Amino acid sequence: MSVVLDTFFNHFLSFFFHLFSIFWLLFLLPLLLVLHICKFIAESMENGTTTSRRTWNFKENEKLVSVSDLTVRSVLNKLRCCIDPADTRPIIPLGHGDPSAFPCFRTTPIAEDAVSDAVRSANFNCYSSTVGILPARRAVAEYLSQDLPYKLSPDDIYLTIGCGQAIEILLNALARPNANILLPTPGFPYYEAWGGFTQMEMRHFNLLPEKEWEVDLNAVESLADENTVAMVIINPGNPCGNVYSEQHLKKVAEMARKLGILVISDEVYAHLAFGSKPFVPMGIFGSIAPVITLGSISKRWIVPGWRLGWLVTNDPNGILKEHGVIDSIMGYLNISSDPATFIQGAIPQILQETKDDFFSKIVNMLREDADICYERIKDIPCITCPSKPQGSMFVMVQLHLNLLEDIEDDLDFCAKLAREESMLILPGVAVGLKNWLRITFACEPSYLEDGFQRLTAFYQRHAKKQ
Amino acid sequence: MSVVLDTFFNHFLSFFFHLFSIFWLLFLLPLLLVLHICKFIAESMENGTTTSRRTWNFKENEKLVSVSDLTVRSVLNKLRCCIDPADTRPIIPLGHGDPSAFPCFRTTPIAEDAVSDAVRSANFNCYSSTVGILPARRAVAEYLSQDLPYKLSPDDIYLTIGCGQAIEILLNALARPNANILLPTPGFPYYEAWGGFTQMEMRHFNLLPEKEWEVDLNAVESLADENTVAMVIINPGNPCGNVYSEQHLKKVAEMARKLGILVISDEVYAHLAFGSKPFVPMGIFGSIAPVITLGSISKRWIVPGWRLGWLVTNDPNGILKEHGVIDSIMGYLNISSDPATFIQGAIPQILQETKDDFFSKIVNMLREDADICYERIKDIPCITCPSKPQGSMFVMVQLHLNLLEDIEDDLDFCAKLAREESMLILPGVAVGLKNWLRITFACEPSYLEDGFQRLTAFYQRHAKKQ
Repeated sequence: MSVVLDTFFNHFLSFFFHLFSIFWLLFLLPLLLVLHICKFIAESMENGTTTSRRTWNFKENEKLVSVSDLTVRSVLNKLRCCIDPADTRPIIPLGHGDPSAFPCFRTTPIAEDAVSDAVRSANFNCYSSTVGILPARRAVAEYLSQDLPYKLSPDDIYLTIGCGQAIEILLNALARPNANILLPTPGFPYYEAWGGFTQMEMRHFNLLPEKEWEVDLNAVESLADENTVAMVIINPGNPCGNVYSEQHLKKVAEMARKLGILVISDEVYAHLAFGSKPFVPMGIFGSIAPVITLGSISKRWIVPGWRLGWLVTNDPNGILKEHGVIDSIMGYLNISSDPATFIQGAIPQILQETKDDFFSKIVNMLREDADICYERIKDIPCITCPSKPQGSMFVMVQLHLNLLEDIEDDLDFCAKLAREESMLILPGVAVGLKNWLRITFACEPSYLEDGFQRLTAFYQRHAKKQ
Repeated sequence: MSVVLDTFFNHFLSFFFHLFSIFWLLFLLPLLLVLHICKFIAESMENGTTTSRRTWNFKENEKLVSVSDLTVRSVLNKLRCCIDPADTRPIIPLGHGDPSAFPCFRTTPIAEDAVSDAVRSANFNCYSSTVGILPARRAVAEYLSQDLPYKLSPDDIYLTIGCGQAIEILLNALARPNANILLPTPGFPYYEAWGGFTQMEMRHFNLLPEKEWEVDLNAVESLADENTVAMVIINPGNPCGNVYSEQHLKKVAEMARKLGILVISDEVYAHLAFGSKPFVPMGIFGSIAPVITLGSISKRWIVPGWRLGWLVTNDPNGILKEHGVIDSIMGYLNISSDPATFIQGAIPQILQETKDDFFSKIVNMLREDADICYERIKDIPCITCPSKPQGSMFVMVQLHLNLLEDIEDDLDFCAKLAREESMLILPGVAVGLKNWLRITFACEPSYLEDGFQRLTAFYQRHAKKQ
């Protein structure tokens, strides 16, 4: 009996042992595994290594993303991505107005010394005042007054982080509800970007290529209404390379007066005029209509990276103050950033001590560049230039797609040019003129010659077969 | 007959002569005068010397004017106007965090050399790239990674015009319609100003003076909803002089994670901690919730006027990119100004070569200043300090108006102090705490002693008579 029992017991034990083993293998082990995985996931989520299930409240500001597509910087960034890294030739940068990298366009040592002296003085490590430090504003007032029939006061001067921030400040200051602003086509896209950001309505008048890119004043008159606050001119012109005569500027002022608007005169390329017409500041007509002049040391001194500009009220009758525009400018300045204080500290020395021979060297070089550019363009059938550049660093040329085989538009032209020739040119669409191109000629002449050889080769490769 | 006729004719002539004279005097002369005056007015208007009748379309942007009243700069500008120009004593500037004018707070020559070298190299006269130049971003990434459990990449770094522009960029990037943001009270008014300008809803949580100004996390939780995108902490604290412990920061991160929001950690006073708690960057908890750290060289190197800061994503899980925040930041950067390129160029040298003894000199001086300040406050019955400052350059003290005779509120206190004692202190209302004061202690110790003597005299003059 005991043997039977014993055997039974053995079988019974063996049965349970097997059952347990099967249960363990089939059920418990996977369960433990699953539990472990769950715990691991939970821990991971806690530590954030897996996050897809967490909801986060923040997201894209769509307005910003679309507005910022409009800048020269953004378009050139995209074109730069097209460049073939395998191309060992130097990039020909005819996309933006910054020749500072070329030794022949190096700024004057007087400017470098002034900055170095200012930083070593330890007098300018402090925060700036809202409008800029007084010695710098006084120096800018004196510098600009040389070309005006009246004296500017330091109180007319607001120092800014380059001319770009001056545009930002002014458009924000003017952007009351329902206001609209008149902008030139072609123009400088930074105005469109900030106009769009402030949600000011932008209305566009044409510049007339057949009249050396003068303002179409009839268009200005028909666009304006009682909500129009300002019109923008850029002189010397970006992107057209034009320089406006005194007579034309007077007509602009008279039209502004008639319409009750102010003139924003972007003179960041002031004095960079090398044609038959001298540079005349719009401010000389400040008593006809209020003028706000924007400028900087970026272009005349070839230091765009130093970020020192100005917003200047040319308004001898005090109309801007009376109408609250000054308060609005001050309001925006109170919440915005300042140019580095020691660069402001260097401004008196820079403006007062730079020699004329530096300025004429730069202007002569630009004239030479413009001549090369204008001549070489004639040799390339698919682009034509309506008007020889007389100032700034740019020329606008029309693109004739009918002479090209496989180019869709100006953007396609520039993208393929970047890819095939490591050469950057701004598509006209970025400045408001589709199927035109803006070519920067401000660079070392040898680069310009090289660039036009590449452009010729590019044209020949893409020319429509007869 | 002829005599009669002759006499008649003479009379007739005389009559007409008189008539004509009277007509001339009474009518024609005034008419001519009026016509002349009209012509003069018309000409004057044409030349703009009389303009009151012209209507101009532009006017004040009211939003801007009201928003900008909120900044420290704007409040201090107003207080500065109260100072009596006849007072020959030096002004005691305890209003803002800028001790750079005091010789003992002069920056290191290593930083001055770095900037001077950069500007003389001529390598940095050009425009910057949108995010800042690579060597500078790499240097900032390495500098900040020293205190983190992971390595930042240069792509996590966006260079800005001081910490101020970093705030501007971030608030604009986050300000989608209906979004709200949680801000500390007391806080830094620049957040309020840009929050107001972007029209983001701002909700306020308290910092708790009885808990060394820790964040009231219950308040944070109850304020947040599905439209809350971020919360702001400032550590070391402005205006409170607090330093947060690692434990508290972890709780902040966990709360942010729970609420699905990001943490904006303003660390412009990073490393300026001189109490028992060391400075801990919020970024160490970037894997719990995404952290955006704002910083600059302004405070640690005592160069607020150099305008070089950074916005840094501490987000090892890439949540910010996934949710479009990076694109929005890039969008705003594309339309905004950059820090001067040569200051960026100087950054590697500044961050890598500044010696520890410079840093400890500054921290020791701040500790000494904070001690003086804390002790002297005890001697002035009308102000009390709930918590000894442990970092930054500020302390918040409560004002007891019941002990003063003729002081209406904190603003009145500061205005009268400026007028009577040529001493600037920021009224608490500017940082969100009415009837408190923010005192900057970062200055030459002798100035601080002088300042507290003036404050004592001011108290005694205005104390309520028993």
